[in-house]
Amino acid sequence: MRYFEDVEVGVAHEIGEHCVSREEIVRFASEWDPQPFHLDEEQATQSVFGGLTASSCHTYAISSLIFSKNPDRMAVAAMLGLSLRFPTAVRPGDELRQLDECIEKRLSRSRPGLGVVQSRTTLTNRAGQEVFVMESSYLVRCRP
Amino acid sequence: MRYFEDVEVGVAHEIGEHCVSREEIVRFASEWDPQPFHLDEEQATQSVFGGLTASSCHTYAISSLIFSKNPDRMAVAAMLGLSLRFPTAVRPGDELRQLDECIEKRLSRSRPGLGVVQSRTTLTNRAGQEVFVMESSYLVRCRP
Repeated sequence: MRYFEDVEVGVAHEIGEHCVSREEIVRFASEWDPQPFHLDEEQATQSVFGGLTASSCHTYAISSLIFSKNPDRMAVAAMLGLSLRFPTAVRPGDELRQLDECIEKRLSRSRPGLGVVQSRTTLTNRAGQEVFVMESSYLVRCRP
Repeated sequence: MRYFEDVEVGVAHEIGEHCVSREEIVRFASEWDPQPFHLDEEQATQSVFGGLTASSCHTYAISSLIFSKNPDRMAVAAMLGLSLRFPTAVRPGDELRQLDECIEKRLSRSRPGLGVVQSRTTLTNRAGQEVFVMESSYLVRCRP
């Protein structure tokens, strides 16, 4: 785990990857975002994407999973807030790579032992297109 | 379904609710955000929240589910982007109510038949605390 002191500003790390199957797109959407263009190939063909795409929430979940599985992840105490963009749709068979970069960090004024870290996270497909751009801020624990 | 023309600016709608169980918190986190404070009551007690809390991604998924299950939902063609805040933690047993409000709308300049809608969505627990505040923008279909 990387504590607040270990987080380097301006250094991007490739932290993991995930292959998105058609089955996973339909399963996630069935449970959490049952809109036709995430569930049904036929109806998805009529959508602005022209085919099946992952729910935006599913794409965020993939990013969250890659982050959480990384043994070298930041020692997050809490998520404060985030903004998300989805420049390109996520489609069945996409292989996504995640890059994390700390943009800024400072010690918390009100909470001793914690710092605030601003991060930029991107998921990129094999064609090099960004499918997910997240700017987020976290409370991160300092070294014990 | 509400098409672009049907969306009223400045009118908040209560669109649904969801009760969050301990089992659901652990199950979602096990699959998508396996950090100890979302999985294990003992370790969660040591966290800044002092107990088990839902993953931020899970909270977003709940909001997405309430939206998608609403038969009167907007005819969304695509999600463009969003910002999320989590002012209060979501805990086992929370009963969350969702309010959606259109902040602004305009016809798309580049895509005939579509409009851009800016929304504000909140999830509130029974104590009246906001646990989730989302500002989002969507492409919404005009009436056929």
